[in-house]
Amino acid sequence: MSKAYEQLQPYLERAQAFQTAKVLFEWDNETLAPKKAGQNTSKVVGTLSSEYFSVITDPQVKKLVKECREEDLGQVEAAIVRELAEEMEKLERVPANEYREFSQLASEGTRIWADARRNKDFESFAPTLKKLVEYTKKFASYRAKEGQKLYDVLLEDYEKGFDMETLDRFFGTLRQQLVPFLKKVTESEVEIEDDFLTGDYKDEDQEAIGRFFAEYVGFDFDRGVMAVSAHPFTTNLHNKDVRVTTSYNRHVDDSLFSVIHESGHAIYELGIPDELTQTLVGGGASMGMHESQSRFFENIIGRNEAFWVPVYAKLQERFPQQLEDVPLEKFVKAINKVEPSLIRTQADELTYSLHVMIRYEIEKMLIEEDLDVDKLPEIWADKYEEYLGVRPKDAAEGVLQDIHWSQGSFGYFPSYALGSAFGAQLYHYMKGQMDFEGLLRAGEIGTIREFLRQHIHQYGKLKTSRQMLKEVTGEDFNPQYYIDYLVEKYGRLYGVTM
Amino acid sequence: MSKAYEQLQPYLERAQAFQTAKVLFEWDNETLAPKKAGQNTSKVVGTLSSEYFSVITDPQVKKLVKECREEDLGQVEAAIVRELAEEMEKLERVPANEYREFSQLASEGTRIWADARRNKDFESFAPTLKKLVEYTKKFASYRAKEGQKLYDVLLEDYEKGFDMETLDRFFGTLRQQLVPFLKKVTESEVEIEDDFLTGDYKDEDQEAIGRFFAEYVGFDFDRGVMAVSAHPFTTNLHNKDVRVTTSYNRHVDDSLFSVIHESGHAIYELGIPDELTQTLVGGGASMGMHESQSRFFENIIGRNEAFWVPVYAKLQERFPQQLEDVPLEKFVKAINKVEPSLIRTQADELTYSLHVMIRYEIEKMLIEEDLDVDKLPEIWADKYEEYLGVRPKDAAEGVLQDIHWSQGSFGYFPSYALGSAFGAQLYHYMKGQMDFEGLLRAGEIGTIREFLRQHIHQYGKLKTSRQMLKEVTGEDFNPQYYIDYLVEKYGRLYGVTM
Repeated sequence: MSKAYEQLQPYLERAQAFQTAKVLFEWDNETLAPKKAGQNTSKVVGTLSSEYFSVITDPQVKKLVKECREEDLGQVEAAIVRELAEEMEKLERVPANEYREFSQLASEGTRIWADARRNKDFESFAPTLKKLVEYTKKFASYRAKEGQKLYDVLLEDYEKGFDMETLDRFFGTLRQQLVPFLKKVTESEVEIEDDFLTGDYKDEDQEAIGRFFAEYVGFDFDRGVMAVSAHPFTTNLHNKDVRVTTSYNRHVDDSLFSVIHESGHAIYELGIPDELTQTLVGGGASMGMHESQSRFFENIIGRNEAFWVPVYAKLQERFPQQLEDVPLEKFVKAINKVEPSLIRTQADELTYSLHVMIRYEIEKMLIEEDLDVDKLPEIWADKYEEYLGVRPKDAAEGVLQDIHWSQGSFGYFPSYALGSAFGAQLYHYMKGQMDFEGLLRAGEIGTIREFLRQHIHQYGKLKTSRQMLKEVTGEDFNPQYYIDYLVEKYGRLYGVTM
Repeated sequence: MSKAYEQLQPYLERAQAFQTAKVLFEWDNETLAPKKAGQNTSKVVGTLSSEYFSVITDPQVKKLVKECREEDLGQVEAAIVRELAEEMEKLERVPANEYREFSQLASEGTRIWADARRNKDFESFAPTLKKLVEYTKKFASYRAKEGQKLYDVLLEDYEKGFDMETLDRFFGTLRQQLVPFLKKVTESEVEIEDDFLTGDYKDEDQEAIGRFFAEYVGFDFDRGVMAVSAHPFTTNLHNKDVRVTTSYNRHVDDSLFSVIHESGHAIYELGIPDELTQTLVGGGASMGMHESQSRFFENIIGRNEAFWVPVYAKLQERFPQQLEDVPLEKFVKAINKVEPSLIRTQADELTYSLHVMIRYEIEKMLIEEDLDVDKLPEIWADKYEEYLGVRPKDAAEGVLQDIHWSQGSFGYFPSYALGSAFGAQLYHYMKGQMDFEGLLRAGEIGTIREFLRQHIHQYGKLKTSRQMLKEVTGEDFNPQYYIDYLVEKYGRLYGVTM
């Protein structure tokens, strides 16, 4: 081991410890903490954040990183130093006091946003959102390389190698092909019945079957935990402690597919090897690659008729009253029903990426075109009407529905759609390598999971999503597979063609 | 605010944050963490411990503490500086590398102990215990003031103002008076029936009634959490996040009284004022004072017939099958049944402190008299036979039953008995100030709780337990109240006199 690299270790260990503690506090806050704990606990989390900041921007770390870069490091070591250097540059370019102001604003912003959403009152959130946009642009300008656009700086944080140019092409393809296709689907005469998915589905039964399906797709309860939170999410302390949440309501498919979705995220983190976990390259490659795995499990595996062949009886047994008389085919149609709607997190597979496209277009306008924040609700509504044919009646089901902007996260949304497209490209390739549907029908998900582990999960952050995609499928990112997958699947279901 | 004191604040905040994070990791580990998480997570916790050590022993902290001591500080500030100075001296007298070795040994020790207990095999734990005793003595010798005995150094950590001289008198009184009294009780012809406390008590019903009783005695679920762990405990992040656990088995009184016991601990922490919480004086005054509150709630309140008058029907309603035909009087007798037994944590109120006395006598021998560790099982068994009339058939129900020594905690046990005695002294005084049983009968526990809050909880660590006891009751610690309380209560129950 290089001497400079060795000297970096205590700093890396400390940064890792502060980060892991923060993850545990977040998890606890979402799943368990008592409602009045917030203010006192956030002091503790604030101190841990500052400590993290101090370690990463320590002058000694900077010096050691520089020395490391001049040395001949192994692949993993070099990747860790690269991640550290990036994180350091990101943090040190923003003055500490401005960063603190912004963090505070973002934390208050989330509360103000939650109130505004409850009251369907965009105006009470608009001044905060304006400030958040201002800070975001200012920070991006500190960090921009010469000639780099501000929104590209933000996109790079979530998805390396994807800038506006690539994304304009990607979303352009979706706009041109999916929007008219969706119109055909919604005008089709095929009617899909799905009322049996809603009813008196008891929480404890949903939990039991959720645990069954989590384990069935590969979640490991010896290295993981499943709990309840308002909005489902996945987090992890390391590769032997990966945690998912779900929530239960009268729609059984909500918890069912959120469990399979989060299990996809979790299986990624469980697949990180021991030598990478608890290092800066010990997580998923990117937001988009993570989302590719969760949506792969949720949709390509979980909403596949072949998946249900060996296990649908399990579900019927648990809910005989609701599903005894519903045949497999009818159930699979119901879980794939297309219905353009207002809320992204409840969107079906076909319309999902159009929700994301709207956010991408608006973010670009906010960051690059000085869009007046006050005009957001109308622009939002217009775009929903144009692309999805539905118009929100208030801001709660419109521009206020997502938490991201209130936390100061801009540039995150595109990853959701990219993930779906990565997944479709992987699926296309995998079908050439294995009898994908045959494996599902035989209940052999392990073979599919093992392919993903070997080709994606085990690399952690050693490669970018784009590199990985290229190495696995032999082809650069190509959104056409995604369109083809959707058109084939939903064309078949609704008896329409492109 | 003094300038030096002000400069201390960032150090104190960091120490507090590291400590709070450690508390959350411990909580998580006991209640939720997946079983394979241990090794990776303990690296994180180890780093947080080292960070805490570094802050407290920072030369700059030492300098500032010295400056503070020369200044005129307010009561709270002075107390914080005093606690910090004590913690600093405690940590800095032990060489960092030896402390690390010891921490690692203690952490391994707990695993080795757990295995040894499972296998009823003391010999596999003895070598580790020997080393732990050696380290403990060595560390105590580093910290001893001139002429101070080693065991007194340890006792001081848990209960300031209580050394071997005081404790010899305390336990001497118990030995002389309680041991013969217990003999009379066990030979009494009164038979107490309690078989109805055991049976098919469903976990979810025990949980529901446990939540009711926690709230009834004053636990605040807006500032607290109740969960399940193998062994019940209480912990807290601050005064707005206090957490208790319990566990459920076929004995309904186990969970019922563990919930009331832990609620007593929790109410103490919930009663710490905002200006003290998240500081070094923001916890209970001492182990003993803490135990005084938990045992006060469990026994003096919870096993009091008057307590059950307004709420016994609630319990009967929840468990009609088991308790419908059991009258109040019969139930109260059952929950106060005396039965000398082998396991401390399952002991009744009368025999409890004799279990503690045995541990005190043995710890003294280990630390002060070089007792050969290999002889422990026999000495343990002999003492149980002498004082309680029962003899363990193996080490699991004998010397291996408690976790404390495996964690390197020596000097902790006496606090358990002191707490009971503090509680009895408070009870004696409070009965002169209020109609204690009348309040319980009227369901007005709030008045009792408020007395404790005003006279004890609100001071945090500003005073020692002994000072507080004196100020509240007007008298120095006096164990006779404890004996009198037990003799009166159990004499009445079993128709015997001293």
